[in-house]
Amino acid sequence: MLNQIIENYSIETLARVFTRAPYQQNKLHQSDAELIRLPGTEITLALTMDSIVEEIETGLYSDPYLIGWMIVMANASDLAAVGARPLGILINETFSKDIAGSAKDKIQNGIEAACFNSGMYVLGGDTNISTQMEMTGCAVGYIDTGDPVTRKGCKAGDILYISDRMGAGNAFAVKQLYLSDSQKCSSNYLPQSRIIEGQTLARFATSCMDTSDGFFAALDQLKRINHSGFRLEYPLDSFIHPLAYNCCKSLNLPLWLMLAGHHGEYELVFTIAKENEDSFLQAADRINWKPVRIGYVQEELTISMLDNEDTVSVDTAGVRNIFAENPGGNVQDYIIKLLNLGKTFNRRKL
Amino acid sequence: MLNQIIENYSIETLARVFTRAPYQQNKLHQSDAELIRLPGTEITLALTMDSIVEEIETGLYSDPYLIGWMIVMANASDLAAVGARPLGILINETFSKDIAGSAKDKIQNGIEAACFNSGMYVLGGDTNISTQMEMTGCAVGYIDTGDPVTRKGCKAGDILYISDRMGAGNAFAVKQLYLSDSQKCSSNYLPQSRIIEGQTLARFATSCMDTSDGFFAALDQLKRINHSGFRLEYPLDSFIHPLAYNCCKSLNLPLWLMLAGHHGEYELVFTIAKENEDSFLQAADRINWKPVRIGYVQEELTISMLDNEDTVSVDTAGVRNIFAENPGGNVQDYIIKLLNLGKTFNRRKL
Repeated sequence: MLNQIIENYSIETLARVFTRAPYQQNKLHQSDAELIRLPGTEITLALTMDSIVEEIETGLYSDPYLIGWMIVMANASDLAAVGARPLGILINETFSKDIAGSAKDKIQNGIEAACFNSGMYVLGGDTNISTQMEMTGCAVGYIDTGDPVTRKGCKAGDILYISDRMGAGNAFAVKQLYLSDSQKCSSNYLPQSRIIEGQTLARFATSCMDTSDGFFAALDQLKRINHSGFRLEYPLDSFIHPLAYNCCKSLNLPLWLMLAGHHGEYELVFTIAKENEDSFLQAADRINWKPVRIGYVQEELTISMLDNEDTVSVDTAGVRNIFAENPGGNVQDYIIKLLNLGKTFNRRKL
Repeated sequence: MLNQIIENYSIETLARVFTRAPYQQNKLHQSDAELIRLPGTEITLALTMDSIVEEIETGLYSDPYLIGWMIVMANASDLAAVGARPLGILINETFSKDIAGSAKDKIQNGIEAACFNSGMYVLGGDTNISTQMEMTGCAVGYIDTGDPVTRKGCKAGDILYISDRMGAGNAFAVKQLYLSDSQKCSSNYLPQSRIIEGQTLARFATSCMDTSDGFFAALDQLKRINHSGFRLEYPLDSFIHPLAYNCCKSLNLPLWLMLAGHHGEYELVFTIAKENEDSFLQAADRINWKPVRIGYVQEELTISMLDNEDTVSVDTAGVRNIFAENPGGNVQDYIIKLLNLGKTFNRRKL
């Protein structure tokens, strides 16, 4: 069932000759960060690697400061999703031959600011020169307070939460790739990873995943790993980020598109067993965090949302595979394909 | 003094805005791998990141199996140089759009074979698509047996050793980039990292560094970090690798060129205090390893070698900066520049 998703299948194909480390606690796909039990201890290392390649080539990230910021946040977010304490990050910077010194400075400043913001440090890295700029980060953290939270473990009846409202990542992508230069406002998109929130929810959550590939992609992956479905029981506009809401209204796009696009944000989707909900909310309150309750886990293997007056069953596999079939493609085509797919969603009146 | 080397200066410039992690044990330049004291424990994590970019773009690595092999070995070698026990590696693979499935398979097989060979596992990673293939690895290991060995710590009088004979990496580069296709033999170059040797020498060595950027580059960096010089007291042909020796003889190149070229191998250069030499050699013998004694550390800040009948003072800064000034340049020009620099080395008869 995982293999119905092109991305999962590609990863499995690439990994099939690799021997799994005996001290690795997570299986393939089961965790946002790799979980390595340090031999002879009760400490779990959390390791993750994330690159920024297509985002630079397509022009999605054009501001050097944002590129630096994002390479840290993309990796920090995976540590957040397993509730790890971050130690730091190693970064490979492949610069284009003709990059200006001032652009390098902005990248470095973005990296440092994002590290400061996430309680991380740059521990090391590598630099190279190529025709094409790209960045790869590898973040490391650790968990010494029991079992880490992974993507696997939720059960029908668990409550579905998000760390904050969704869709800002896709709103940014639409603005950056879809609007003309004159329509773009200056970039103020600097998403934050949910490190402290991740550590807090890890004590209660039955599963957790970040939304870096979009909200529906996260729900779809959780569904496949847990053999469970999800019912979103509140209207979309109650948990869509204001930036995403405004984007849809001004361009006359449906709200669900902001949950479907592949450029997510670094929020967390997670599930809490009913009996732990009160303690969880008290713990969240102690760090001044207001997680957003959006639905629950169900046995039925569907993902349904409330859209206007309808209950809509979302083809999340279709949503994910449209992107995978043409990852660096034209954003206009991509939106049209998503909208056409949306017409096939099963809808019924409330 | 470190900053006389273009590469050191570039790294310092990139790193200057970064806050150093309070639990990082090594300073910039002082270690092949980053050494992170895991808070609340006596365990040191060893982390390193190394990429293969220019090697692919210039055609130095054209065989996909070799590319997979090298991304593991380049990183494993840094763990070896600090005496760490390896845990594994995360790898970002950026594939070109048109890569064949069979080439991907060969890369994965090369990665798996190199991991098996180094006692490592692929723990995770990322994949991307770009116009240009590139690979980034991040290896992790740990040290729970006291202080790790770093590049810093040798003193005048310490004995200088290498893990095996030198120059095979540069011989491969000459064959791959300098000879015509008809002159090239099929690739049988698969260098090994010195993981077990590194763990063995770590109990005795006062400093250690791998030769991945060439032997002279390693000696030069050790010289700058330790404010000491080195005297190579045996003729070059006694510690030049047979592949390098044959390469020089057939192309009428001087032997020292195989120590100067930037494409080193994954051998280790290290120093042992005189009083520990016997115990070190006994420990090496127990793992059937024959380290090669080549000279000693001296107060005089020079690096001298025995070349034919001469004692030659090598301008290792010049050697390193020639490469840094034109990293992706033509290999023929590079060799001519090195040979011209060689004419300026201070020589005197024995």
